Amino acid sequence: MDKRSYKTRLKVIRAGIARLKADCLIATKPANVTYLTGFTGEDSWAVVLPGAVILVTDSRYTEQAAAQCRFCRIVERKEAMAKAIAELLQNRRGIKTAVVEKSTSLAVFESLRKHLPCRLKGAEGIVESARRKKDTSEISAIRAAAKIAARAFGRVLRQVKPGLTENKLAGIVDFEIRKAGGNNSFETIVAFGPNASRPHHQPTSRKLRKNDTVLIDFGVRLSGYCCDLTRCFSVGIPRGRYDKVYAVVKQAQAAAIRMVKAGVEISQVDTAAREIIKKADLPVYGHGTGHGLGLDVHELPAVSGKVKGKLHAGDVITIEPGVYIPGRLGVRIEDDILVTNDGCIVLTANYPKC
Amino acid sequence: MDKRSYKTRLKVIRAGIARLKADCLIATKPANVTYLTGFTGEDSWAVVLPGAVILVTDSRYTEQAAAQCRFCRIVERKEAMAKAIAELLQNRRGIKTAVVEKSTSLAVFESLRKHLPCRLKGAEGIVESARRKKDTSEISAIRAAAKIAARAFGRVLRQVKPGLTENKLAGIVDFEIRKAGGNNSFETIVAFGPNASRPHHQPTSRKLRKNDTVLIDFGVRLSGYCCDLTRCFSVGIPRGRYDKVYAVVKQAQAAAIRMVKAGVEISQVDTAAREIIKKADLPVYGHGTGHGLGLDVHELPAVSGKVKGKLHAGDVITIEPGVYIPGRLGVRIEDDILVTNDGCIVLTANYPKC
Repeated sequence: MDKRSYKTRLKVIRAGIARLKADCLIATKPANVTYLTGFTGEDSWAVVLPGAVILVTDSRYTEQAAAQCRFCRIVERKEAMAKAIAELLQNRRGIKTAVVEKSTSLAVFESLRKHLPCRLKGAEGIVESARRKKDTSEISAIRAAAKIAARAFGRVLRQVKPGLTENKLAGIVDFEIRKAGGNNSFETIVAFGPNASRPHHQPTSRKLRKNDTVLIDFGVRLSGYCCDLTRCFSVGIPRGRYDKVYAVVKQAQAAAIRMVKAGVEISQVDTAAREIIKKADLPVYGHGTGHGLGLDVHELPAVSGKVKGKLHAGDVITIEPGVYIPGRLGVRIEDDILVTNDGCIVLTANYPKC
Repeated sequence: MDKRSYKTRLKVIRAGIARLKADCLIATKPANVTYLTGFTGEDSWAVVLPGAVILVTDSRYTEQAAAQCRFCRIVERKEAMAKAIAELLQNRRGIKTAVVEKSTSLAVFESLRKHLPCRLKGAEGIVESARRKKDTSEISAIRAAAKIAARAFGRVLRQVKPGLTENKLAGIVDFEIRKAGGNNSFETIVAFGPNASRPHHQPTSRKLRKNDTVLIDFGVRLSGYCCDLTRCFSVGIPRGRYDKVYAVVKQAQAAAIRMVKAGVEISQVDTAAREIIKKADLPVYGHGTGHGLGLDVHELPAVSGKVKGKLHAGDVITIEPGVYIPGRLGVRIEDDILVTNDGCIVLTANYPKC
């Protein structure tokens, strides 16, 4: 991130604070702290003041903070977090109202209210809304995560063979991600055969058989940023309607991706995918068609039929329709897409779709 | 868990609710929900009423809940969580005051306060204090996690060789845990040589050299329960004072473990370890001597010099003193200990201490 993009970020955040008639934001959610400071460690908060951004951390993280925070001040606290923040605000006369994120626990809120020398309110979404529009450095970071995922996935494919358990294959995925230099962005889902009909399946000791099918839903986190992908393939000649269903899901995904462009209603993207599945007389998936991703693996905007609002240039979203037939099969295909003024760029294009 | 231990749990919890002059507890913290219901999935809450315990979940988890919850009711919600809970309490005349855990977010608290047909207060520690005393089924679960950790660690040791990076070795640890049937209970720490002087080191691409030292801090989660261990070893003849420091840390740990017994002041256990290190003229560690563990990898009781209170029979704690010399070396040895009336049982004894 360069100084200019950082300033743009802060301008948007400060406008959000002003809209709430407040003078200061206390950010406690890890991804928001990273967004405001660059810091990726734990147990640290960011305070946005009119003239400064301050990371409040402790001795375990001072070294890391010094390396990661290029444009903000770092304060190493010796006392409880609420007290340290109170001290920061003590002699700043301009600060009459502070807002803290509503994702903060009730315990923390009460402790802040007790110690702060100003009014305190809860607020939602100030940083989250700003995070929707990804800047160049963020897009590069997601691309870099996707590149690692591609390398890892290629190596995973070579190790898939009958006899492997779902559990072990999930382990291989995680290990290959590590070896390629990244970390999981969420717990890897591996589902064989009919197990794939449960979208949130947890890997079991079920073994891969001849002519079985495989669903892998996985992601990489790199320098804080996530990618998120699902691929399905078979290890022989799949039974029943699998190939037909796979083709329909692929079509549905392509139809949704073709819709993606800044200014398009989000619900239309959702409809585009569902229509194809409905027309093919297959059961329409119960989950959303996608979600935003960046510092969190799920962030704004949600991509579903219920969402009112349009896609914006700079949104990064997943498109992941699926077909689930309990006891028979499950297919989901998921890619990460950058929304542009002309259409979109698939950030995970270098993956084989089998 | 058998029905009798479940009834004992509930009795303790209900006494806690009564002490707060409330009639109902809404538990939102995942480990507390597991403790109250047996359920290990996500996005589900437990409601403890005078005559019943209810797990409120959604369609994604109904199947899992049915398999895991043996002694409570399951409600599949179709609407927002706060509304579903409000509906549950609607026609129960006895419920005048509900308490919700203070770890709950401010947003959730406000939404509950808006919807519930009764008073709402925040409360801390009701379930957490009950969780301190582990019953037989919980101790077996931690033992089972420790057994998997032992098997995985044995296989890891055979793969340690110069040239490996910290990152890859962390990957090997995670993979072996998976293959042995468990999951990580937290992010594995692997530190080579001087990197081990940072207690919260994150694995890097640093390669293992001849005559280097290795610190691995890792844990297994199995059926919800955690173990947590640290082992240090060298791959040749370590330089400098490493062997001497290792011997001192081992002595310090043994001294603390010898102190462990129901009725002993927790701070005395802490002091026992620190005294040995002080006497050897080595720097005393800045972190606590240990922590409780069970459904969470950090739970009650904390084992530090600041804690006022005694050990109880049924506590499961870690004992993990260390010596850290920045730029030179770090050694920490950590085991999991069950406190009994006669002394203690080391649950992680089947690990080689090198």
